[in-house]
Amino acid sequence: MRGAVGACAKKESSVFHGKVLVAQGGGPTAVINQSMVGAVLESRKFRAVELIYGAVHGVRGIVDEDFYDLTQETTHNLEMVANTPSSALGSTRDKPDLKYCQEIFKVLRAHEIGYFFYTGGNDSSDTVRIVNDEARKANYNLRCIHIPKTIDNDLVENDHTPGFPSAARYVAQAFMGINLDNAALPGIYIGVVMGRHAGFLTAASALGKKFSDDGPHLIYMPERVFEIDRFLSDVKQVYERHGRCVVAVSEGIHDASGQPIISRLAREVERDAHGNVQLSGSGALADLLTQKVKDALKITRVRGDTLGYMQRSFIGCVSDVDQNEAREVGEKAVQYGMFGDRDGSVTIKRTGHYSVDYELVPLEMVAGKTRTMPDAFIAPSGHDVTDEFRLYLRPLLGKGMPDAHRLRPNKVAKILAGG
Amino acid sequence: MRGAVGACAKKESSVFHGKVLVAQGGGPTAVINQSMVGAVLESRKFRAVELIYGAVHGVRGIVDEDFYDLTQETTHNLEMVANTPSSALGSTRDKPDLKYCQEIFKVLRAHEIGYFFYTGGNDSSDTVRIVNDEARKANYNLRCIHIPKTIDNDLVENDHTPGFPSAARYVAQAFMGINLDNAALPGIYIGVVMGRHAGFLTAASALGKKFSDDGPHLIYMPERVFEIDRFLSDVKQVYERHGRCVVAVSEGIHDASGQPIISRLAREVERDAHGNVQLSGSGALADLLTQKVKDALKITRVRGDTLGYMQRSFIGCVSDVDQNEAREVGEKAVQYGMFGDRDGSVTIKRTGHYSVDYELVPLEMVAGKTRTMPDAFIAPSGHDVTDEFRLYLRPLLGKGMPDAHRLRPNKVAKILAGG
Repeated sequence: MRGAVGACAKKESSVFHGKVLVAQGGGPTAVINQSMVGAVLESRKFRAVELIYGAVHGVRGIVDEDFYDLTQETTHNLEMVANTPSSALGSTRDKPDLKYCQEIFKVLRAHEIGYFFYTGGNDSSDTVRIVNDEARKANYNLRCIHIPKTIDNDLVENDHTPGFPSAARYVAQAFMGINLDNAALPGIYIGVVMGRHAGFLTAASALGKKFSDDGPHLIYMPERVFEIDRFLSDVKQVYERHGRCVVAVSEGIHDASGQPIISRLAREVERDAHGNVQLSGSGALADLLTQKVKDALKITRVRGDTLGYMQRSFIGCVSDVDQNEAREVGEKAVQYGMFGDRDGSVTIKRTGHYSVDYELVPLEMVAGKTRTMPDAFIAPSGHDVTDEFRLYLRPLLGKGMPDAHRLRPNKVAKILAGG
Repeated sequence: MRGAVGACAKKESSVFHGKVLVAQGGGPTAVINQSMVGAVLESRKFRAVELIYGAVHGVRGIVDEDFYDLTQETTHNLEMVANTPSSALGSTRDKPDLKYCQEIFKVLRAHEIGYFFYTGGNDSSDTVRIVNDEARKANYNLRCIHIPKTIDNDLVENDHTPGFPSAARYVAQAFMGINLDNAALPGIYIGVVMGRHAGFLTAASALGKKFSDDGPHLIYMPERVFEIDRFLSDVKQVYERHGRCVVAVSEGIHDASGQPIISRLAREVERDAHGNVQLSGSGALADLLTQKVKDALKITRVRGDTLGYMQRSFIGCVSDVDQNEAREVGEKAVQYGMFGDRDGSVTIKRTGHYSVDYELVPLEMVAGKTRTMPDAFIAPSGHDVTDEFRLYLRPLLGKGMPDAHRLRPNKVAKILAGG
């Protein structure tokens, strides 16, 4: 793919439009502003660039002509914003259809935008693709580049996506602490992790383990069918061995028919614009599972937490590798657009352990597609990860991961001996 | 109180017992091991100390004679454990009655324990008090010292308690991120924070605010009666002003009769050994409140999270002030026991902004008592904190608090103007 310029079609018009537009879509991440700032600062190095606009709340801000002139922002403040989690320009859950994309293009043309950089997941890359098609049909010279981002790590063509490593680090650190807490006050703990179709983030909980008896002892990912009875017997087995059990479970677990476990109980299931059942922002799944364990296994201390929005927004838990890569995909988007005069989606390819490079691939290769955990990352039991996954994830978590230490038991002989 | 040795009664026997016993009780914290290690390392400096035992799982480990010999642990590993959150010796929820305390004393005497250091909350200090009484009645020479700890910050006689600053830091950082997330994708967010009777931890969410329109916009503490209708109108008002609303609410909120709001809906309320309704480890309260908002205000995007066990166990979010103070209360406990030959509870007194000193007070002054937020810390509205509270809490959070930065808007003129 590298150097295959022809793979990403050029448009024919030679009229030059000197404005850059950046926008942020979908769920925020800890490093999404790095990509935005990378694109803004890199763009300002090109003589051809006249002004740099930021769309407020993603595509919604484009159709509303709600733009900030980022050329009037200072470098210092941009750097400060880069280090701040969550979309500084605002985001949106709008998923543009053809008509919506035509509106976007109308505004881009009116403001003489020549370069459109949109950071988001696979929905966002699809938007970029359609807007690009509209520009081509209108013979309007527009470079359209998608910058990857998603904590779910579910974009195809990418070794991983910016935002995922920091969220994975949060999840690993959370379970590292939860394991210690559960060891101090033994019982059953069930932690529900974000991820509708892809189990990467739930699997990241395994990186909190150090000793063989550490939790999470069971990890359920949406790539495998979830059976309540099997789950209960797994928990029972671990509890009998260790006197406690820590479980990490994806919010997207479903039965053999594909129905989400959560929808079995929610009295009123909320659906989003795409018809998806709302999974986050509710503790229902954790509460359902803890109740099942209490009822079936007669264990007293059963606790459930939903890790919630902290997974993507907690300030102060970020991977430096993620920060740097998020910055680089933003820069590379601009370089591909300016030097390469190409449209496409910037992707992360792993080139060493650990090293990456960035490639531009055609938008249709990424748009609307979903990647899930490869089988090689999931243990045959279906409730654990493999060493291959651990090796894959570890370098992404970055420097300064905390470590947990134990006392080494030197038992004192009993005197009263149960007397 | 300082120097008032007479305030803490001495026992009469002069028989010396050369063993130290340390134990950890109640909910784990991020720094509870600092206190344990502080006591262990300080004890080893005294010639009179023969061996240092650690009780496994608190008082439960004492009655079971389940001890580790910590004298055989290395200094390096003790330091590593000090920096690890959650009770390394294990904890327990047992609340000893008189008979249980007599069992404890029996074991202490059998193992010739001369110094008993117990880290915990007000229940634990009551245990120390009863064990101390038993020793006195038996004319057995035992120094009994309670070392403070609780993320709830609800011990009387203390400016604050070890464990609280780190938990407060987690809550502040969580809401700092949540506010950014909610600003990017506007809606209603309700975050439920630990704290049955005392609102300190919920109030800590306010330290995440930087700009006047930042969340949390509403903070509900158990020191004030919670009225659903009032809550709904508060949310509506904030939403109309800002187009979004972030709420921090204590798990312990209750109605005018004192009934917890959570017990209004839970189909099967769990109660602990003390008859308290189980509040943590369930998402029920957040789900109840989000449903109320959805039903009453017809707002689409309403999300709720329960911050859960991460508040006390998340690894990698700790206040250095808290670490140091937790270490010091452990050291001071030993120094008061050895040099002062006194029993009591170590307390933290604020002596400057910011500086503290440690005083030993009689056990009965702390045992079984609960401190709540002073009125001066709660705004007259009842749903916010005062600047006095902010000034109180800020130094406790320690060095290196993350900061959130915004883009400064330079609006671009519309061209199509809604066309």
